[in-house]
Amino acid sequence: MTIRLYDLVAANGRSLSPFVWRIKYALAHKGLSFEAAPVGFTDIPKLCGGKYKTVPIIEDGATTVCDSWAIADYLDKTYRDAPTLFTSPQERAMAHFFDGWFGLEIMNRIFQINVADIHNHARPEDQPYFRQSREARLGGKTLEQFAEGRDARLDELRYALRPMRAALLSAPFLGGDTANYADYIALGGFLWAGAVCTIPLLKADDKLNDWLKRGFDLYDGIGNVERYPLTA
Amino acid sequence: MTIRLYDLVAANGRSLSPFVWRIKYALAHKGLSFEAAPVGFTDIPKLCGGKYKTVPIIEDGATTVCDSWAIADYLDKTYRDAPTLFTSPQERAMAHFFDGWFGLEIMNRIFQINVADIHNHARPEDQPYFRQSREARLGGKTLEQFAEGRDARLDELRYALRPMRAALLSAPFLGGDTANYADYIALGGFLWAGAVCTIPLLKADDKLNDWLKRGFDLYDGIGNVERYPLTA
Repeated sequence: MTIRLYDLVAANGRSLSPFVWRIKYALAHKGLSFEAAPVGFTDIPKLCGGKYKTVPIIEDGATTVCDSWAIADYLDKTYRDAPTLFTSPQERAMAHFFDGWFGLEIMNRIFQINVADIHNHARPEDQPYFRQSREARLGGKTLEQFAEGRDARLDELRYALRPMRAALLSAPFLGGDTANYADYIALGGFLWAGAVCTIPLLKADDKLNDWLKRGFDLYDGIGNVERYPLTA
Repeated sequence: MTIRLYDLVAANGRSLSPFVWRIKYALAHKGLSFEAAPVGFTDIPKLCGGKYKTVPIIEDGATTVCDSWAIADYLDKTYRDAPTLFTSPQERAMAHFFDGWFGLEIMNRIFQINVADIHNHARPEDQPYFRQSREARLGGKTLEQFAEGRDARLDELRYALRPMRAALLSAPFLGGDTANYADYIALGGFLWAGAVCTIPLLKADDKLNDWLKRGFDLYDGIGNVERYPLTA
């Protein structure tokens, strides 16, 4: 049976969720087919009887699972014969550390750069919700005020990416010779940026560009979707 | 046969190498006995016919291995029946990412705080070498000039540790339910600081204190050595 994956989308149909992206990669990693069910920000509370506030949500037969980590664990537990997402509890714990680092140091900075772009790409009916909920987190600034001077934040973001560059000096993927969940987490972050971000995040000579290309090419080019340039 | 582990020591006998510390933990993890051979900074070029510039170095029978990653790999390859340091190449790759993050974001900041302390604790015959080699890296400043205002750097260090706190919200160790090489890397960094650092690095209410205690207690309290307080 095909798994249904609810995906948060922009007006132009591009995915607006880095967390859905990692599950798309995870499903591909395990060789599981899925159909994406596109929804907007304001649709999420209407799904599954209003039980969940965020995507990804999967429906797998009678089972519904929300939250990317819960879904990853569900997939490994349920589809044991398919390639595992985590070779051991230790690798899972390390991917969890990576997720924390990427969220705190990288995703937060991308959000500071692309928050107004997300709004502008959201479906018209989602834009008021997005503005209201996000501006409540931005210390009284409008999305546009918050995004002012964002070019200066690019340097900070590029500097913060040093640990990924260091790891990728000696291996093609964060997972080593093959991509693992840490790669999917990071690729999801860049795909999220690429969906909406109207300024390129990386310099042309950034070694991360090679890794991005490898990552987008995985699983028959799962990440080669229409997007803004990620590289200046 | 007992493995010999060359250890860089201060005048008071405490270890001055975070990289030796991770190998002490790695040997304990694998249940391998070792004898530490204490040396000073200026002794290292005299070891093993001058082949190596850094510690750790191990001598295991006729085999000599230098560099903490090479030693960790050697131990897993040679002592296959003992508990593995890395359950899979993926876990190893993730620990390698962690090492890069910890070096760039944490160890560099600890070094900026404790560099003069290291000098002052080094054996008298090592101090001129240490001062000359380190001041060459400090942009023309003396160790003492570089250490000025270091209290202000504590905030930056504590802030940079957020990803470790995030990971340790849901598990006792970075490796999950049990400690792994990432824990040993980080514990080694704090033990290095504790050997010499005359100001405490962490606040009393920092959740990392619980993890440090758990880590020091591992393997019959391998990390419970004499040190300066790590906590204010």
